[in-house]
Amino acid sequence: MKTLGELGERRIITLIMDRLTKMPDMPLPFWDDASAVKIKENLSVVLKTDLLVWKTDVPRGMTPFQAARKTVVMNFSDLGSKGVKPMAFMASLALPRSLGLDFVEEIAKGFDEAAREYDAYVIGGDTGEADEIIISGMAFGIAEEDRLVKRKGARPGDILATTGLFGKTGAAFKILLEGYEAPPSLKKNLIDSVYSPQARVKEGIALARSGAVSASIDSSDGLAMSLHDLSRSSRVGFRVENLPWSKEAKEFSEIHGLDLSDLVLYGGEEYEIVFTVKPEFLDVAKAALAALGCELFEIGVATREQKIIYIQDSVEKPVKAGYEHFVNV
Amino acid sequence: MKTLGELGERRIITLIMDRLTKMPDMPLPFWDDASAVKIKENLSVVLKTDLLVWKTDVPRGMTPFQAARKTVVMNFSDLGSKGVKPMAFMASLALPRSLGLDFVEEIAKGFDEAAREYDAYVIGGDTGEADEIIISGMAFGIAEEDRLVKRKGARPGDILATTGLFGKTGAAFKILLEGYEAPPSLKKNLIDSVYSPQARVKEGIALARSGAVSASIDSSDGLAMSLHDLSRSSRVGFRVENLPWSKEAKEFSEIHGLDLSDLVLYGGEEYEIVFTVKPEFLDVAKAALAALGCELFEIGVATREQKIIYIQDSVEKPVKAGYEHFVNV
Repeated sequence: MKTLGELGERRIITLIMDRLTKMPDMPLPFWDDASAVKIKENLSVVLKTDLLVWKTDVPRGMTPFQAARKTVVMNFSDLGSKGVKPMAFMASLALPRSLGLDFVEEIAKGFDEAAREYDAYVIGGDTGEADEIIISGMAFGIAEEDRLVKRKGARPGDILATTGLFGKTGAAFKILLEGYEAPPSLKKNLIDSVYSPQARVKEGIALARSGAVSASIDSSDGLAMSLHDLSRSSRVGFRVENLPWSKEAKEFSEIHGLDLSDLVLYGGEEYEIVFTVKPEFLDVAKAALAALGCELFEIGVATREQKIIYIQDSVEKPVKAGYEHFVNV
Repeated sequence: MKTLGELGERRIITLIMDRLTKMPDMPLPFWDDASAVKIKENLSVVLKTDLLVWKTDVPRGMTPFQAARKTVVMNFSDLGSKGVKPMAFMASLALPRSLGLDFVEEIAKGFDEAAREYDAYVIGGDTGEADEIIISGMAFGIAEEDRLVKRKGARPGDILATTGLFGKTGAAFKILLEGYEAPPSLKKNLIDSVYSPQARVKEGIALARSGAVSASIDSSDGLAMSLHDLSRSSRVGFRVENLPWSKEAKEFSEIHGLDLSDLVLYGGEEYEIVFTVKPEFLDVAKAALAALGCELFEIGVATREQKIIYIQDSVEKPVKAGYEHFVNV
């Protein structure tokens, strides 16, 4: 009998889903960023639950306030990527009894501040005693079903785009987990990308409302994994012609002689939206984002062949699937 | 600085709530069994999240299937007690990587079977790697706001009632946690009450629809704690004249010379509905339950004085608050 460590998170989730009775008429299929239930004609409740395990998901130096805030961002980002405004957040907290009161106060403040940043509220939760600290977050919103943007829907020829640049968190994890160094202001900038992430909620809603987007996903599992997930759901491949690297990631890669594409593709814990647009609607999508002060980064194109490649120095290279929980690394 | 172990779960939750910005127009207040958000005129989404920590919440002999099923029951019971039909269930699973595949398969089956028992579906979830096993469940349903039955609303003179009898789980925990014994068929009956609980979802919905109920709560924290919570929210006291003891609990208490009232009041993990009814509506409430084959147990009366007492052998005794997570016992 195999263990979870031999399987990896995606096969564990597949295994679970295979044993579930499927709700008829699900507005979002299994394997999308969030779940949804139709409650009236063209009105769905959209729900997301995402887990923060202190031991593995909270890097050195991150405060309880930041960890709580991040749990909200993780959950809201998934709703945002579907075009859904989060209305409320709830949390289940597993906490050791030796923890101090101040720790829990900081967690509560982090939840509240993050929810309010996105014009939502914390409406409840639960606590239980455990040996380790685990925060299970839950977000919900409502949406018109025909406005929900799925992972499925990209067609060959669609433009592949993102709401932002990548690689800062990848560099930050090198600093936080592997002891790499960087000049003070660069270091702070990189680490802040991990400690204080932002979800692209307004941007996701604007993209959905624009009607220009054929498929989308949030990039919390990293750009590479997001492309693989979009590819699997939409049954297209991707050719990434312009890697969306941030200048801070480039600077860091040059200091340490690291491959910039590794930082950009496999960093993870970035909360941009990765999406596809029909070429004729590109200007509409750009305008929707520009109204929010957000740039649209054209990074490539969806292809008929279900292969994901990127171009580096005029050479085609394969995009691997990226990081996964449970897998022995 | 105090630790959580010195505070207890209720004061921890109070502490968290005090730091939250309150959503305007909450259809259910903080401290009720579930949370709710108004999405349209007289239409609310009702949500619940409740946590199962393997180490503390799964007694000896309970299978992964049963533990998963129980997580669904825990969450659905809270919705049911508000008169809300659960539509969907989600779960976040914290799992050690050394776990076997079969364990996760059993969990998935438990979720699915339990959800289907209540005509609901499992629609998604998340997994994360941890040292211990923790299942965070989440349930949701929709309700007309004016049909939601709150903990607040009981008036002095209202009849106090339950949907069932108590004490079997209390006896079962004596067997499972303290090594007490019982004749085989009694033992099986008692232990099954812990391994395979039932939520009073249909009964809660019928009571809410009947319009006869002034306040209600589910009894998952034990009858005593439920009375204290109802008392606090409704600002009434209770005089319990007929302790709702089950014959199995009585038999067990007689075998071991245990106080039956302890088993009935402080057992916990029972999923009955404890509610109040205006005397003139008692027959309506009885009829609503009878249509489902469920008896209404009149156990006492709500009183002006905010004191909770029960009568045993013609003597008035105080009902203590009962079990709480985190509290050193």
